[in-house]
Amino acid sequence: MLLLSREDIKSVITMKDIIEADKKAFKMVVDGTVDTPLRTVVNGKYDGAFLFMPAYAPEMDAAAMKVINIFPHNIDNGLMTSPAQVMLIDGKTGYVIAMLDGTYVTQLRTGASSGAAFDLLAKKDCKKGAMIGTGGQAATQLEAMLAARKLEEVKIFDLNEERCKAFAEQMQEELASYGAKILPAASSDECIEDADLIITVTPSPKPVFDGTKVKAGATISCVGTYEPHKHEMDPAILPRASKIICDSKEAALSETGDLLIPIADGIITEDDIQGSLGDVINGKIKGRENDDEIIVYETVGVAAQDLVAAKVIYDKAVEAGKGLVWG
Amino acid sequence: MLLLSREDIKSVITMKDIIEADKKAFKMVVDGTVDTPLRTVVNGKYDGAFLFMPAYAPEMDAAAMKVINIFPHNIDNGLMTSPAQVMLIDGKTGYVIAMLDGTYVTQLRTGASSGAAFDLLAKKDCKKGAMIGTGGQAATQLEAMLAARKLEEVKIFDLNEERCKAFAEQMQEELASYGAKILPAASSDECIEDADLIITVTPSPKPVFDGTKVKAGATISCVGTYEPHKHEMDPAILPRASKIICDSKEAALSETGDLLIPIADGIITEDDIQGSLGDVINGKIKGRENDDEIIVYETVGVAAQDLVAAKVIYDKAVEAGKGLVWG
Repeated sequence: MLLLSREDIKSVITMKDIIEADKKAFKMVVDGTVDTPLRTVVNGKYDGAFLFMPAYAPEMDAAAMKVINIFPHNIDNGLMTSPAQVMLIDGKTGYVIAMLDGTYVTQLRTGASSGAAFDLLAKKDCKKGAMIGTGGQAATQLEAMLAARKLEEVKIFDLNEERCKAFAEQMQEELASYGAKILPAASSDECIEDADLIITVTPSPKPVFDGTKVKAGATISCVGTYEPHKHEMDPAILPRASKIICDSKEAALSETGDLLIPIADGIITEDDIQGSLGDVINGKIKGRENDDEIIVYETVGVAAQDLVAAKVIYDKAVEAGKGLVWG
Repeated sequence: MLLLSREDIKSVITMKDIIEADKKAFKMVVDGTVDTPLRTVVNGKYDGAFLFMPAYAPEMDAAAMKVINIFPHNIDNGLMTSPAQVMLIDGKTGYVIAMLDGTYVTQLRTGASSGAAFDLLAKKDCKKGAMIGTGGQAATQLEAMLAARKLEEVKIFDLNEERCKAFAEQMQEELASYGAKILPAASSDECIEDADLIITVTPSPKPVFDGTKVKAGATISCVGTYEPHKHEMDPAILPRASKIICDSKEAALSETGDLLIPIADGIITEDDIQGSLGDVINGKIKGRENDDEIIVYETVGVAAQDLVAAKVIYDKAVEAGKGLVWG
């Protein structure tokens, strides 16, 4: 078995690789060529939950099991709130052939979801990005945005001013090769002003931006909301959007308040959601048709992303001779 | 994370430890203090299946995920037919704290199930053992039998004469410390003749011993049948048995033809099955009442066994400083 740490993974993979992996995963989901049984959720006694997410792709001869456990109070003890591991399984023999740092795989594939959406749905010519939220998923979201379009500037906003500034500075350094200025914004309004690409990645129970202030032609990826009773997206954006597209329409409609709450409130109906990103890839639904339309992308994550990302990373690690062989 | 190989596990654990772990697991199952959601089964395209078995025990502050994949044709390529891994999760933080060789954990906890049954249900004074089957689960079954009772002799039978002889010789050497003679038998009848303890651990679709020839006072553990349409147990033993007890009555009645076929044939009814081994531990049902009764034990395995075994092994490995720390 090959053990792949965050550093091992970083050394063999680029964000563009994972964006392509996510596209493949989203295509497999709509094509029905990946078997992703309902995830198993076990609630723990300390306000934590254990999530077990299996997936199997016959065409890739690979299966995976991601264990991701949601322990919000870990933050009080300086621990990760969503520790995870991914087991990759050889579809021909049933042997577990790799274990990957699942926290990092999750960050990569979740960031790449926004990257895939921007790649497929955003205007060709984008100059300004905006990102709201600076938590554990933020760094890969930002990198995916930069990988999808050549930007001049990205403004970052977080309610915690100090953290916002520190994050922007750190990212400016780490992502310098993309050539964009990464700057903290003093408000949500300042952050999204004139932005072509917007990402929201917060645990907020209520909207984190003003939907009336999003400029024409923008593409917005909402990442943070995975519970039905919360919404970080401002529903005011929905009547302005010409298209609403999900990573998986089915998954989004069962999980995220970003869509469920506006549907319950009569702002949109299910029919206003065009479909899944895989449908755009397959040409079943249209992507962007002009530079003025606003497109909203809603991503909640699907187990197929973990499987394809793990397989791509594994193949590259084997080729590069990275990781620790054990057992 | 602590990585525990077969050798690491062997170096810190005894069969008696795992027998006690199984007893604890079986008690938790009947007490309802372990959360074991339905396992997820995904069928593969090569006549293989991926099985994902989660378990969570609040009182132990531990959860586990066993991935065990059933690939019968692996044997043609000299590979294991049921490769497995067990992830152990800290119930307080959600961190995966260990990965254990799941194939060996499965062998240990499955052997220990027979050991626990013999410990709780067999006559005090046993002299002769019989074991039918020499596959991957056989070695730990034999050791568990020897750990439960001080035997003078164990006869082994397998349809493959050569393999039977080789297995008996190898076990005589490996398990020499138990002080029993381990000998191959030329037939199933010879194997079970005069046996106080009998284990059947075969993939046979039809009975592997003659139930009319089992002696009074014997305790029989049937391990091999986990599919509804197969039975290795001879139903003729059932009317002769004063008690039929399962590792988990509920699990056994949903999985094993050893019981489902005789019920369908009207040989026994569900009510003839007294209950689960945990009920014996809790004193809710009686164990052995005299030295003449025949007791049948049917075990199909439950995820709680993997969890408790993994936790006990992990604790001992940490104490002994064994295993490889990774990540």
